[in-house]
Amino acid sequence: MQVKINISLKTGVLDPQGRAVENALSGLGFTDASHVRIGKQITLDIDAEDSARAEQRAARMCESLLANTVIEDYSIEVIDAS
Amino acid sequence: MQVKINISLKTGVLDPQGRAVENALSGLGFTDASHVRIGKQITLDIDAEDSARAEQRAARMCESLLANTVIEDYSIEVIDAS
Repeated sequence: MQVKINISLKTGVLDPQGRAVENALSGLGFTDASHVRIGKQITLDIDAEDSARAEQRAARMCESLLANTVIEDYSIEVIDAS
Repeated sequence: MQVKINISLKTGVLDPQGRAVENALSGLGFTDASHVRIGKQITLDIDAEDSARAEQRAARMCESLLANTVIEDYSIEVIDAS
């Protein structure tokens, strides 16, 4: 079962990488870009009976390794339930 | 206009970060996870008249800075057309 996990910094947490990209974009003439935030997107296959179980496993993976839940939020989407 | 850009490695390109995460998950007992691939998700505001124009600007940003189009694919989604 293919699962997509989006991990993003919580609102209010400073994003220095996003700031750097914003400055670089501005330097290239893209002055219309603002509020750049950079997150991670993880896709993986999970061997599970159904999509509810896959989502549950993905959440446990996020809590124990993938996301730093102090400063990051995560969302899980089962994109291929085969 | 809020735009979401997903940048992922092209199929066939080795993903050492994904491999490392897969091994770490396996070490934690998540042996049901496989084919872990890690990409970036960039959200930003683009000052544009309409969503077509915002998408066009985002594509130009990807081509010139955000994505390495030799090894990465990108997809653009205008999520808030206000």
